[in-house]
Amino acid sequence: MTEDTGRPTADKPMRARGRLAISASLQPRDLMADRPALKGAWRAKVITLFPEAFPGTLGLSLTGKALDQGLWALEPIDLRPFGEGKHRNVDDTPAGGGAGMVLRADIVGRALSMAALNTPSDRARWPVVYMSPRGRPLTQAMAQRFAQAEGMTILCGRFEGVDDRALEHFNVEEVSLGDFVLTGGEIAATALIDAAVRLIPRVLGNQESTENESFSDGLLEHPQYTRPSVWEGHDIPDILLSGDHGRIAEWRQTMAERLTQQRRPDLWRAYCAKHGRDPVDDQEL
Amino acid sequence: MTEDTGRPTADKPMRARGRLAISASLQPRDLMADRPALKGAWRAKVITLFPEAFPGTLGLSLTGKALDQGLWALEPIDLRPFGEGKHRNVDDTPAGGGAGMVLRADIVGRALSMAALNTPSDRARWPVVYMSPRGRPLTQAMAQRFAQAEGMTILCGRFEGVDDRALEHFNVEEVSLGDFVLTGGEIAATALIDAAVRLIPRVLGNQESTENESFSDGLLEHPQYTRPSVWEGHDIPDILLSGDHGRIAEWRQTMAERLTQQRRPDLWRAYCAKHGRDPVDDQEL
Repeated sequence: MTEDTGRPTADKPMRARGRLAISASLQPRDLMADRPALKGAWRAKVITLFPEAFPGTLGLSLTGKALDQGLWALEPIDLRPFGEGKHRNVDDTPAGGGAGMVLRADIVGRALSMAALNTPSDRARWPVVYMSPRGRPLTQAMAQRFAQAEGMTILCGRFEGVDDRALEHFNVEEVSLGDFVLTGGEIAATALIDAAVRLIPRVLGNQESTENESFSDGLLEHPQYTRPSVWEGHDIPDILLSGDHGRIAEWRQTMAERLTQQRRPDLWRAYCAKHGRDPVDDQEL
Repeated sequence: MTEDTGRPTADKPMRARGRLAISASLQPRDLMADRPALKGAWRAKVITLFPEAFPGTLGLSLTGKALDQGLWALEPIDLRPFGEGKHRNVDDTPAGGGAGMVLRADIVGRALSMAALNTPSDRARWPVVYMSPRGRPLTQAMAQRFAQAEGMTILCGRFEGVDDRALEHFNVEEVSLGDFVLTGGEIAATALIDAAVRLIPRVLGNQESTENESFSDGLLEHPQYTRPSVWEGHDIPDILLSGDHGRIAEWRQTMAERLTQQRRPDLWRAYCAKHGRDPVDDQEL
């Protein structure tokens, strides 16, 4: 099932092909949803106690421009109204004791159910992700997978986490930004969305720049230089000014390999395994 | 050399000990710097083409409250005014060819020099970091090191990166958020600052909650549950409702180990090595 919330269909055609199609929705709308989205545009729904964190930095620069152009859409879903009682409580103390508070399964469940409206239930077409240090680390391959989906729902945690039953019941994928702890999931969700959105066609002006960058071939990127050719007594390496494109490409490959070997032995081992090279033989690169 | 920009000193005592001390500065001030900072408070200087990205999410929730209380201070430094020509250009094409644009060493150098004013030159007391996928991945240990410094300067990249000479000349530490590529360094800097700030004393209400969390002991955190005890047919594990604190602690340890083993074989191997355990023996946990 794809999005059908008042958008043009075969019975109710768009006024003009290829133009912006303003979508209507049964749910209360917020600021972000007022931006027009192109039909079929990638969408991110973000369940959060801090909807005001969005679009944040995603509203600036290339991702912001793409948001304005309707190349993707952002729908923050405020978790608070799903809470209970006068204060709309969303959390409670951990079963079995311990510090902090845990987001309740019933309340998170209601938000996830609402987010699931008008989205495909197939997790390949619409991933549902919880940002958590307990998850699998975000990688460029994962960002590509998310960017290729129709959209995704991201649950932002706070406090000590989310009742595990909600994650299991809704088949939620736990994704970690890395081996560090954040105050909440909003910054992690922002990073994940940024990493995915920039891979959506037409978001980056120059498509080539996603091809030659770090991780796309399993190596860190070679060092870069630009004018002035001498700065504070430091020269640009001669070879880069030689005009010999073959030797420049070779130098860059060597530098990328050396840097990866020095800084990321883990990536280096994976690269060598993939290319049938012995990581030890190359230590004198 | 520590900060001395009109703050109280031995010759010029604070009006009241332990109260807010408003600091003055020779540099033009921006919105963030108008917030009062406690004497000796941790400070983050962020060099960016998008100063409006700050404080962003850092201005919300616990980090925002701590910012308002002066427990830390944030000083975005706009890179644009350091640019040259009518359009204040900050970048140029890569030496040796290729897509994208590279931030110029001379321009970034000027911004780093300004950021260095009134900060210790000792990188242990004041780390200078460039957020880049080429860096070493951010870890909780790194966040702790940054939080224990007096403050830090963070350079946010854009485009194809920064002229390598600027990084070398200023002894800049490259830090990566993870193995994925972002549109720019602003989101990565936000994540790094959040991870560091929450470790500053008094920022989190409950200090205990930084002790029992993921990574503090090298394991992912055990699953959490809270009321209601039955939800959608799913129970909270009986043991958590038993009141037997010894057995609960044991169960949580087992679950944390199992989760780490399943999701993060890398962390699991490190944990086993540290505790003199055989990772293979434990596969039937």
